[in-house]
Amino acid sequence: MSQDHHVEELLTLLRFASISTDPAHKEQTQACADWIAAKLTGMGLKTEIHPTPGHPVVVARNEHKPGRRTLMIYGHYDVQPVDPLNLWDSPPFEPVIKDGIIYARGSTDNKGQFLAHIQGVEETLKEKGELPVNLIFLIEGEEEIGSPNLTPFLQAHKDELKCDLVAVSDTGMVAPGVPTFSYGLRGLTAVEVTLKGPVMDLHSGIFGGAVANPATAVARLVASLHDANGHVQIEGFYDDVAPLQSWERDAWKDLPMDDAALKSLTGVQELFGEAGFSSIERTTARPTAEVNGIGGGYQGPGSKTVLPSKAMAKFTFRLVPNQDPAKIQDLVVKHLEKHLPPGVEMEIHRGHSGSPYLVDPQSGFGVAAQRALEASFGRKPALIREGGSIPIVQAFKTVLGADTLLLGFALPDCRAHSPNENYPVENLHACRRLNRALLEEIAKV
Amino acid sequence: MSQDHHVEELLTLLRFASISTDPAHKEQTQACADWIAAKLTGMGLKTEIHPTPGHPVVVARNEHKPGRRTLMIYGHYDVQPVDPLNLWDSPPFEPVIKDGIIYARGSTDNKGQFLAHIQGVEETLKEKGELPVNLIFLIEGEEEIGSPNLTPFLQAHKDELKCDLVAVSDTGMVAPGVPTFSYGLRGLTAVEVTLKGPVMDLHSGIFGGAVANPATAVARLVASLHDANGHVQIEGFYDDVAPLQSWERDAWKDLPMDDAALKSLTGVQELFGEAGFSSIERTTARPTAEVNGIGGGYQGPGSKTVLPSKAMAKFTFRLVPNQDPAKIQDLVVKHLEKHLPPGVEMEIHRGHSGSPYLVDPQSGFGVAAQRALEASFGRKPALIREGGSIPIVQAFKTVLGADTLLLGFALPDCRAHSPNENYPVENLHACRRLNRALLEEIAKV
Repeated sequence: MSQDHHVEELLTLLRFASISTDPAHKEQTQACADWIAAKLTGMGLKTEIHPTPGHPVVVARNEHKPGRRTLMIYGHYDVQPVDPLNLWDSPPFEPVIKDGIIYARGSTDNKGQFLAHIQGVEETLKEKGELPVNLIFLIEGEEEIGSPNLTPFLQAHKDELKCDLVAVSDTGMVAPGVPTFSYGLRGLTAVEVTLKGPVMDLHSGIFGGAVANPATAVARLVASLHDANGHVQIEGFYDDVAPLQSWERDAWKDLPMDDAALKSLTGVQELFGEAGFSSIERTTARPTAEVNGIGGGYQGPGSKTVLPSKAMAKFTFRLVPNQDPAKIQDLVVKHLEKHLPPGVEMEIHRGHSGSPYLVDPQSGFGVAAQRALEASFGRKPALIREGGSIPIVQAFKTVLGADTLLLGFALPDCRAHSPNENYPVENLHACRRLNRALLEEIAKV
Repeated sequence: MSQDHHVEELLTLLRFASISTDPAHKEQTQACADWIAAKLTGMGLKTEIHPTPGHPVVVARNEHKPGRRTLMIYGHYDVQPVDPLNLWDSPPFEPVIKDGIIYARGSTDNKGQFLAHIQGVEETLKEKGELPVNLIFLIEGEEEIGSPNLTPFLQAHKDELKCDLVAVSDTGMVAPGVPTFSYGLRGLTAVEVTLKGPVMDLHSGIFGGAVANPATAVARLVASLHDANGHVQIEGFYDDVAPLQSWERDAWKDLPMDDAALKSLTGVQELFGEAGFSSIERTTARPTAEVNGIGGGYQGPGSKTVLPSKAMAKFTFRLVPNQDPAKIQDLVVKHLEKHLPPGVEMEIHRGHSGSPYLVDPQSGFGVAAQRALEASFGRKPALIREGGSIPIVQAFKTVLGADTLLLGFALPDCRAHSPNENYPVENLHACRRLNRALLEEIAKV
């Protein structure tokens, strides 16, 4: 199989509009799962498509032999929504390659990464006829909506899915060409509020002044979350935050991630965050309270003098060890109830949660992963914590008893979740090389 | 002419679907103007249909004689759109009468009111052969879209339209059967802000914590506008607010407008507004800072863990005498600039403004209006200020030099601008009686 063929195969996979959150894309999402299963079956793996109440899980395995390490490789074939569509330079599900970079929704997150692992396994099988480990591919379709059906699936199939270790390529690289081992993840908990005032939008002249404005109220709620220095004001929010270790601060000092790069990546004029912490600490080792969406009243062109009937805000809180998502969600709800302005009614919708995660990079498997990364890039890996959340990693630990190695290939400017998501062709190949080295290193532990 | 005939005539007028904002209704709107002009011509008035860049203005006058007062009666024959159509109990342009109430779009706003004035003049002319005043009818077709062509029309025809006084029946009655003289209007100034952060929506895990969130920032800006007691926190905002006169507080105490009615009209569980003022004071004599719309990030179903690229808010400030809209707009902009949270950039769009309006109800014309209202209803009129804004009233003052008497017949539940707009037959007759009494009273001043 030529390198071009690897790329062509990824482009095919990227053409499935497998947006898990949108019911209108259910067929496309199913078709994507079918395609992956066919691919794995074609490689000689024993493959099953397991239906769930949501989108299916694809599981594939080689013939397992006693006395070998069992490695699970996890990925997800679902993708984020694509709006605002007008900010894409090319259609999100019609991948194009420009200057060695593939542009499409899902290219980095996560199709370009799990497919590279599949391609690595395919290569090894072709060259050697077998793998050095017992392998399980677990590719799900609901990661972008919080994997609601995966933990039950793990529980229902825990014997067949038993493994020593999980490898996931769904995290970032600190810079192009720098192999990166993420030994930590932030957790998350989501909460949405709807504030209801009058039963209909009111004339702001006739009623304005005597009836609480839900848009004002939701703004006051949001504003109550932080002080002017960016500290979260929810009572008890920081109580369980584990302080950074000194080796972490040392390891992070020399990373090729500085504030100038962060500004350039995001296009902001100045950075802003919790006072007393560096940007890398703020994005990986400190918890946050973030508004993902806010809305109410008239948002079209021109002016409309209404007092809106309702307003909403969607929040997610990124969490770090040892914060407990359920406990934090309770503190959030308590805070929102306490700070609800008068004159409006609040509906709170508790969303999904995921625990923060930390693994010891100097453990046996940790060292194996570092060796595999060094072998596939020719340089020592950077050790970082990841700012994002992969809730399922916690489930691998609690249900399967397995630690997870996060060996990701997302570049800082990959625009995951944003318009013009992209993935370098080079990373597809590097991830394939990593897969081959990783299986060999794991076999030695 | 029988009373039934008056009603039949209104039903005919209501059958014109004269929706000014909708180009598809242009012919119906023109036909409506033609019908009105024919009616006025038939009464012996000298009538002209003046084309404008939008919908025509109908002007009619009796033979003006020196030494008499000149009164202009203003009205508008255009109506609001009718959607959502499915919420109407009967088709909006097929008027029906149930229990003495006429249901049709435009019945209250404004056809049922200006036609009653026309019918009053017709009756006087039939009975007495002439009117006691020099009269000008000015009936426009663009009120519901902000009267864009009326001020230029006034300027172009200011000599022919010169008058001592304008009477407008396009405001509300405090309750059925209670004649109401609105001696004040709130003004308004509009401002819109867009806050820009990162150049695109960011992954809230990867970047959250180190980059300011524009949705949080816009919420903090909005929250900065009020304190917890509903007082506007913009420096200097209240400086020029004329305090309520003691006679106003006294006059308003006994009005049949209570908080229970306000709750029932709006469907809120509790009212909320500036501490220290009653609901009627809050809606008519106190200025407000209102968010008409707020938006940023993901507002669709489910969750999307983005840090939004931008967020917006639309504000209108209702103003009272002696606040100057231009000055308030400057104070608003200054406040927004001062309270802009770090890490985001702000674009401010200055919107339209209108001055607050106050006429002395104890002036000669004011007393005449009160006498006319009392004569036509058999009880003393309520004196109120109106919470809304009628920008054209300010134009009558500045272009024609004339004060305006607001003598309206809209009931609190008339559903102007909403489905099932309605107007009691009784109010049609009361407004006709008012017209006859008003002309007589004005002639005496």
